[in-house]
Amino acid sequence: MIIVCETKATEAQISALQQVIREAGLQVHRSDGTEYTVLGVVGDRSRLDIDAFSLMPGVRNVVPVSTPYKLASREFHPENTVVPVGETTLVGGAEVVVMAGPCAVENAEQIEASAQFVAKSGARILRGGAFKPRSSPYSYQGLGVEGLKMLRHAADSYRLAVVTEVMTIEQIETVCEYADLLQVGARNMQNYPFLTALGRVKKPILLKRGMAATIQEWLMSAEYILTEGNHDVILCERGIRTFETATRNTLDLSAVPVIKHLSHLPIIVDPSHGVGDRRFVVPMARAAVAAGADGVLVEVHPDPDKALSDGPQSLTFEEFGTLMNRCRIIATTIGRSLARTN
Amino acid sequence: MIIVCETKATEAQISALQQVIREAGLQVHRSDGTEYTVLGVVGDRSRLDIDAFSLMPGVRNVVPVSTPYKLASREFHPENTVVPVGETTLVGGAEVVVMAGPCAVENAEQIEASAQFVAKSGARILRGGAFKPRSSPYSYQGLGVEGLKMLRHAADSYRLAVVTEVMTIEQIETVCEYADLLQVGARNMQNYPFLTALGRVKKPILLKRGMAATIQEWLMSAEYILTEGNHDVILCERGIRTFETATRNTLDLSAVPVIKHLSHLPIIVDPSHGVGDRRFVVPMARAAVAAGADGVLVEVHPDPDKALSDGPQSLTFEEFGTLMNRCRIIATTIGRSLARTN
Amino acid sequence: MIIVCETKATEAQISALQQVIREAGLQVHRSDGTEYTVLGVVGDRSRLDIDAFSLMPGVRNVVPVSTPYKLASREFHPENTVVPVGETTLVGGAEVVVMAGPCAVENAEQIEASAQFVAKSGARILRGGAFKPRSSPYSYQGLGVEGLKMLRHAADSYRLAVVTEVMTIEQIETVCEYADLLQVGARNMQNYPFLTALGRVKKPILLKRGMAATIQEWLMSAEYILTEGNHDVILCERGIRTFETATRNTLDLSAVPVIKHLSHLPIIVDPSHGVGDRRFVVPMARAAVAAGADGVLVEVHPDPDKALSDGPQSLTFEEFGTLMNRCRIIATTIGRSLARTN
Amino acid sequence: MIIVCETKATEAQISALQQVIREAGLQVHRSDGTEYTVLGVVGDRSRLDIDAFSLMPGVRNVVPVSTPYKLASREFHPENTVVPVGETTLVGGAEVVVMAGPCAVENAEQIEASAQFVAKSGARILRGGAFKPRSSPYSYQGLGVEGLKMLRHAADSYRLAVVTEVMTIEQIETVCEYADLLQVGARNMQNYPFLTALGRVKKPILLKRGMAATIQEWLMSAEYILTEGNHDVILCERGIRTFETATRNTLDLSAVPVIKHLSHLPIIVDPSHGVGDRRFVVPMARAAVAAGADGVLVEVHPDPDKALSDGPQSLTFEEFGTLMNRCRIIATTIGRSLARTN
Repeated sequence: MIIVCETKATEAQISALQQVIREAGLQVHRSDGTEYTVLGVVGDRSRLDIDAFSLMPGVRNVVPVSTPYKLASREFHPENTVVPVGETTLVGGAEVVVMAGPCAVENAEQIEASAQFVAKSGARILRGGAFKPRSSPYSYQGLGVEGLKMLRHAADSYRLAVVTEVMTIEQIETVCEYADLLQVGARNMQNYPFLTALGRVKKPILLKRGMAATIQEWLMSAEYILTEGNHDVILCERGIRTFETATRNTLDLSAVPVIKHLSHLPIIVDPSHGVGDRRFVVPMARAAVAAGADGVLVEVHPDPDKALSDGPQSLTFEEFGTLMNRCRIIATTIGRSLARTN
Repeated sequence: MIIVCETKATEAQISALQQVIREAGLQVHRSDGTEYTVLGVVGDRSRLDIDAFSLMPGVRNVVPVSTPYKLASREFHPENTVVPVGETTLVGGAEVVVMAGPCAVENAEQIEASAQFVAKSGARILRGGAFKPRSSPYSYQGLGVEGLKMLRHAADSYRLAVVTEVMTIEQIETVCEYADLLQVGARNMQNYPFLTALGRVKKPILLKRGMAATIQEWLMSAEYILTEGNHDVILCERGIRTFETATRNTLDLSAVPVIKHLSHLPIIVDPSHGVGDRRFVVPMARAAVAAGADGVLVEVHPDPDKALSDGPQSLTFEEFGTLMNRCRIIATTIGRSLARTN
Repeated sequence: MIIVCETKATEAQISALQQVIREAGLQVHRSDGTEYTVLGVVGDRSRLDIDAFSLMPGVRNVVPVSTPYKLASREFHPENTVVPVGETTLVGGAEVVVMAGPCAVENAEQIEASAQFVAKSGARILRGGAFKPRSSPYSYQGLGVEGLKMLRHAADSYRLAVVTEVMTIEQIETVCEYADLLQVGARNMQNYPFLTALGRVKKPILLKRGMAATIQEWLMSAEYILTEGNHDVILCERGIRTFETATRNTLDLSAVPVIKHLSHLPIIVDPSHGVGDRRFVVPMARAAVAAGADGVLVEVHPDPDKALSDGPQSLTFEEFGTLMNRCRIIATTIGRSLARTN
Repeated sequence: MIIVCETKATEAQISALQQVIREAGLQVHRSDGTEYTVLGVVGDRSRLDIDAFSLMPGVRNVVPVSTPYKLASREFHPENTVVPVGETTLVGGAEVVVMAGPCAVENAEQIEASAQFVAKSGARILRGGAFKPRSSPYSYQGLGVEGLKMLRHAADSYRLAVVTEVMTIEQIETVCEYADLLQVGARNMQNYPFLTALGRVKKPILLKRGMAATIQEWLMSAEYILTEGNHDVILCERGIRTFETATRNTLDLSAVPVIKHLSHLPIIVDPSHGVGDRRFVVPMARAAVAAGADGVLVEVHPDPDKALSDGPQSLTFEEFGTLMNRCRIIATTIGRSLARTN
């Protein structure tokens, strides 16, 4: 951290600043320029509340030099992290991993048919919601444990791994019995007690970006999980909230290269929630692969018009099959691969 | 709900739409105009996923007519709701209620001094955090139950009620022992299982607006609490996230008259988190009262430069005293009152 | 400007940086800390493109120390600027100045009636659009010069000054003949050739904030006018664009104290465009005065339901009269005044 | 347009509404449902201010059925528009057209070297700024006409067309002498008199999206040009403003499929301004092609570290060459092409 003092800061003010820093057990290095004095602070930044300095007398600017997250940063861990999901899938390596399936598990037939088709098309992981966070208390809330069982059975039949959302600390144990990858929804991205609990779990976590979360906040949420000992975190961009209303959210694909630059964690993209309209999901899924995402999470439904939730953004089997073929070529173009059939 | 069909929608498409609606147990009323056919849907909207229609063949627009929330709407409950907090305070009536105190309870002296001063100045409710949600796992996380005890003791000494944040379902019981008003933080606004649990509590809830939550979503979160039987919900505007970086958030004061129009629930304003800088808190607190807020939630600290959290946005006692005197006159100007001394 | 070098920056990289800075005619002051080297740059910042350094080899952070605007900054000009408008009105002094009138001048009767009423209620300046910027080419575009004449005549009859929008360089001369204060619309806030032309005019300028302009960019646009020699710039907050759709824009009232802190220029608030709904304009106008605005710009119409533009956000005479009475008391509360009758 | 009346609307209110509509020369079709009355309005919507109805007594909702733009809509013109630029290039057809070059023309050597390299790599159009809109009046403002001459000469030498920005009505004639495609910057997107003037020009227009413009507003700005008779409009997505600060803007690639759905006009993407950092431009350019863009506009500079503007976001020749090779394969994957060498 660097503190730039005001041009007119008094010697007493500067001394006071230095004292506060030293009292916090940190070192301070002073440099007097012709226009202003600069204090460089060295040590464990977590011991100081950086904002607390910004209004102290004599302070002009406080400049964080190091990032507020550590374990999640590429500086700390220069190599890409590769996260194993289930027995055979690796996320964050050369392969672009496709996770697909319906928004919600509705019944055994629906999830079986979905599993069969997405496996055949090259997906590695079956998605499907059993516990659904809904903004209205009157909306469909999911099948619960019954849905998890159907999901697991369908995935096993076609050698897929399972990703599904877990919403509360209480659900973690149950969801761990059935799922290979635990999804944290956008609305829970800053639910810190929940993140801490997930940091103690022996399964990988798929951490969706909050609707209004900056990339830095997102990495700090990952840090909550990492500090507890669970190093298998996959990030998932799913759109941020902007003024634009033509799409449900604004899918921020630039988060892919930015995360690759700042962090070693894998990042995948969910174009289905990102745009909320089937007609725009296909081009955005292709774009995600071209941007360098480690995977995509796509909603597919045997009969989207009859889906109990998110029908308008779910692809038909046919649309999904075509998409996979194109993404496979795009992946190859940038030196990656995408599974052919499972 | 009204469905506007495409100009070129076929009779078969329109019939299909009507059938889906009727199968959901709703009535449909068809009107053929010269340019397009309009279907009016009557019945319990919660039984239909409104988005599901938007991509069905032949559909041009789907227009929600009723709001997705009910119990929170002014249509359902035309009179203002007045929420009792503690034994003597009413929020949502003629009095503008001030809730003040430090961001975090740090020690007995700090909270006692704060309680004494804010009570003397006319505040009714003492605020102070014991469980702190922090975006960094390395930041100060609060004193926990010890903090709650100090807070309760200080409030009782000066006949104040207590508001404090509760972060998880597990904490609810404990916090209920010490607090009169349970605060739900912005990051938990869409934590639905948590809201449901709070709906079963016998204490009033202070529901902060999420950082990127629309007013409609905020009212839907209130609905989660109301539907479980807890009718004592107070809304709290605390700033939304925008592109502007000169303030921590953008305090959306227009939410005050908008909420008054759409809902019967009381709404207060937290200018401290809204702007994040002491120098701007005072004018925004005055503006909140002028805009018609039912109360303000203000951070005050005996020595803001040494605060363990949110120091830069905490007022000194002197600033707070002056603010209260001005807000009292502004309240009177619009036909309301603000307590003189407690 | 301060350049923080990377921990692993080589001596050659640091030397190269120093050389580039010196070649630009600036001084550089080097300070080697235990973790990183810091370069302090002294001189005329306008000669360096600050972003250009951020990707140079060995650079970690580039930190602007001074603001990019000068003439508009309070550092440069510590006293409040008071802008004379017409012969008798001062904006930026103790008086809160009200500017009111219809969105568009529609005919002589409408503007005369408006002028009479707003003057009687205490407004100092008559507003009314003659050249209208409309997002649709099919919308009503204004009466042009005929409208300006009507506006001037009505204002003169009731001793009001005139504010009206000017849209192009070509219109400046004509508008100057009839108006006392030239309004620059939000969409023109970054039309630099236009701002430069306005900097050469002998009339004060009302510079509206762009819909997505940061406060810093807004002050830089003011700088364009100031550098050309026109020092009479009044800023006008009129709402920024956010994700919220319940109001037309999100009125950022915190811009008032922030501008007061950063700049010496007066700032007024336009709640009518800020919220776009008559029912919410009244509380927001009161809030603007309470927040410390130097004036408000309010749309008033003799018969809002028949207005050719912006009817839904125009106040009736009765609403306006009541508003003025309340704002007068609020102004007094914070040590200011608001004219009684003109 | 459809007007949904309030449940409790009186017969007198409904009649008044019908009368206002008929007085505007439009037809109204009334339909009485069991819960509410719906009025369908048929005729030229441009004759009514849609917002004006929303606050009339008895009105619950006003629902636009048709889009506010016509000539720009795909309904009006179902086939893709193909825009000729210069003598040999078509934008909006099967070929993905690359426009590349430096941000600003700095001198003859720089622009010649750039032209030679981008032509060799497959670009069709040379970009380069001669008139630069800068947010600070102290920044480099461009070479003006001298820059245009250098740009034209360099382009002609390598059989490229020329795209460059025009900032004012006065500059149009001059820029038309040297350029094949006139770029309208984001800050001018809603400068309506300027758009009207460009509608009378015989050259194609590249209309950049405003920083906070919705897709609908962008198409309405295109409409301003189209209604004047210039049908050759190419849209350019260049990032919108959001709360995220890790990138200069948030590149909204979903605008590509949305525009393709709503309009017949070609759309290209400018990833350089979209992200503002060279390291992120390459993946976003690939993603733009994968999303279906009709072209990309990329900043390339012989020596980005010495660029007078936008250096940090300019690609080196080597980076650009590699990018082109990858985009060529991606284009092929989705049934398009990208030129090999010029």
